Amino acid sequence: MAQTVTPPRGMRDFLPAEKARREHALSVIRGVYATHGFDEIETPVMEDSSRLHAGLGGDNEKLAFAVMKRGITHDDLRAAAESGDALALADLGLRYDLTVPLARFYATHRAALPPVFRAIQIGPVWRAERPQKGRYRQFVQCDIDIIGEAGPLAELELLTATVAALDALGLAGCRIRLNDRRILSGILASWGVADELRERALITIDKLDKIGPDGVAAELATLGVEKADVADELRQLATADWSLADRQPSQTGHGVPAPAWLDVDAYRDLIALRDAVPGTGIDFDPTLVRGMGYYTGTIFEIAHPDFGYSLGGGGRYDHMIGRFLGQEVPACGFSIGFERIVDLLAVRDEGRPRSVVLVYDAEVEPAELLGLKHELVASGMRVRFERRAKNLRGLLDRVSADGFDAWASVTSDTTDAASLEFRDLGA
Amino acid sequence: MAQTVTPPRGMRDFLPAEKARREHALSVIRGVYATHGFDEIETPVMEDSSRLHAGLGGDNEKLAFAVMKRGITHDDLRAAAESGDALALADLGLRYDLTVPLARFYATHRAALPPVFRAIQIGPVWRAERPQKGRYRQFVQCDIDIIGEAGPLAELELLTATVAALDALGLAGCRIRLNDRRILSGILASWGVADELRERALITIDKLDKIGPDGVAAELATLGVEKADVADELRQLATADWSLADRQPSQTGHGVPAPAWLDVDAYRDLIALRDAVPGTGIDFDPTLVRGMGYYTGTIFEIAHPDFGYSLGGGGRYDHMIGRFLGQEVPACGFSIGFERIVDLLAVRDEGRPRSVVLVYDAEVEPAELLGLKHELVASGMRVRFERRAKNLRGLLDRVSADGFDAWASVTSDTTDAASLEFRDLGA
Repeated sequence: MAQTVTPPRGMRDFLPAEKARREHALSVIRGVYATHGFDEIETPVMEDSSRLHAGLGGDNEKLAFAVMKRGITHDDLRAAAESGDALALADLGLRYDLTVPLARFYATHRAALPPVFRAIQIGPVWRAERPQKGRYRQFVQCDIDIIGEAGPLAELELLTATVAALDALGLAGCRIRLNDRRILSGILASWGVADELRERALITIDKLDKIGPDGVAAELATLGVEKADVADELRQLATADWSLADRQPSQTGHGVPAPAWLDVDAYRDLIALRDAVPGTGIDFDPTLVRGMGYYTGTIFEIAHPDFGYSLGGGGRYDHMIGRFLGQEVPACGFSIGFERIVDLLAVRDEGRPRSVVLVYDAEVEPAELLGLKHELVASGMRVRFERRAKNLRGLLDRVSADGFDAWASVTSDTTDAASLEFRDLGA
Repeated sequence: MAQTVTPPRGMRDFLPAEKARREHALSVIRGVYATHGFDEIETPVMEDSSRLHAGLGGDNEKLAFAVMKRGITHDDLRAAAESGDALALADLGLRYDLTVPLARFYATHRAALPPVFRAIQIGPVWRAERPQKGRYRQFVQCDIDIIGEAGPLAELELLTATVAALDALGLAGCRIRLNDRRILSGILASWGVADELRERALITIDKLDKIGPDGVAAELATLGVEKADVADELRQLATADWSLADRQPSQTGHGVPAPAWLDVDAYRDLIALRDAVPGTGIDFDPTLVRGMGYYTGTIFEIAHPDFGYSLGGGGRYDHMIGRFLGQEVPACGFSIGFERIVDLLAVRDEGRPRSVVLVYDAEVEPAELLGLKHELVASGMRVRFERRAKNLRGLLDRVSADGFDAWASVTSDTTDAASLEFRDLGA
């Protein structure tokens, strides 16, 4: 029996040490984001099915867990069997991200929110992914968003707050990759990609890391991109950097013109962002796509040189709020990849109370034990009882591994907390 | 359009002030429970349907939200239409409490846990209740449980930790009502209630507050309790207190025998608990039932004299873990009614960073603003930008209501943070 008792497929339990590490990381992130002027909000984990399937969630919509209607009748079941539409039996779904719920929240509460609203959202989301290493069906997202700010101050506040949060977590030295959807549009236009194929072409370019320039060029060819040198151009794009700046038409004295594919306005905006965030490495990457279809302008990703994967990303999505509100409001967000980050963190002991174990004999009265605990807790300690075991060494090793600092023996002769002799556990 | 954008029925959004109050309360509770030797864990919000519907959740099982299987086929739908069993299409469900998941967690991870495991669980649960004032379909539960301790030390640690947590939240002066399922069994036995009707009889007694002794007596009569004076006995039970102690056979010198319905062993255990928790008012209440069928011994509720409802409760459930593990392990738990408590709390400002608003002119460069923010955040402040509005008074009133302490004007002449002139917002 016991061996079959597991959490649902693709979902995790967190034991005390892991839970403590996660809560510590979240409280550091919360604290930094709050000092940077963001306010935390919370929405229910479920949203109406129609909202989750409004075309704003991209591929994630297909991965949404559906929650069944209450009071489903025989007739409902028969109708679903006829139509073959199981989702007709669901009226709610579990959120697959925090962005769709934020847009819904903003549409619900706009009148009570400031004109520029800086939101923190921290919470689990669910996706019915095929379980595999590092992919979970329930995982925590950690987003900041600025709604109502059309100018670059939004991007700047998001980037600096995120870098500060990662610094506070001990992940200093992160670098940011920066691009703009307008630059991607310029590239696609230079290749003659038809408007209706742009989303698919972007998804293809997004695979550059995985399938290389030749693979991307081959896939683009199936979308009608017939230029012979697309793979070469992709190789050049992948190595593009800020030296393109020297070729800006606005910078006189340099005769090299900007490349034909470059949206110069967007590029200047990116340079202004780079120059406004001193102390953080910011790279230009015209091949950065970010998956979601709702991005409209700046897009960014953050990575640490020690790790070969992105630690988070985001961008500007100026048309999404309008889908819920019926009125366009600019918006920009940054999502930290919490599950990736939390595994990188060293456990830190600062600010933790002194943790002690009282090993007691069976004959000590519970009321006596409780009195000792009361005194020690009042003096600022964390206290745990352990009944004396035959294998005392094993007991002490275990509580030492659990992070306790010291232990003392409690016998029927123990009179008060002052008479306890604490010995270090020496982890 | 906008007026129809709401969270799902019976579920709530939390705006910044309310979210901050909730997070503050949770961090106080977490801190107190940790110092009392409890360890926080987390389980997924979903469990397998078969576990949620194993008969351990009482009436809550009927209120569980069902999550649909992935990849439901036409055949599945036809089979469900034939059987009329909609739940056959669901393989997971959202948890309706934290106790069933804890029992599953313990069965999964027992080998990695200490022999006496003190768990904290804080998280949302879901019940498809008919929405009404104060009842929500998603709400937070806040539980501590001790698994593996058969003796009264479990009850004592739970009671003192809970009282300490409520004290820390500013709810000093709570009183505890105490009873034991064995005492209830004695009462039912004295009325001749058949074993198979005991659960139903307990549910009836649990309504004493609502329908009074006569109402309860009438319902008990339908269960075959035919004694004429049940209503009178209920009235006496409802006023019973610790003076029954004087009649204990063990206390010589008092000739009055214990009442026939009183399980004297259980009663002595309750007295020992009372005597071991000094400084907290503890009342004996033989009519206290607590709803769940899984309780086996001590049961308790906590209330504040200022409020006419329970702030939490719990009890001993020695047979539940065995249902998952295949081996009996004693257990006892206490659940704080978080949603009730959070509404009672005054907002407290201690430990909050100084919060300032920078009101900036449109012509100030974003990079300049960011530099100012950087300096102020580094000095320990929380900083928010607001673009200067025509109605400055309105702007200042709004940010003052949002909890900011001071504001300063930023113009193109502002050189650095030292040149800012902060003025109090005077909330």
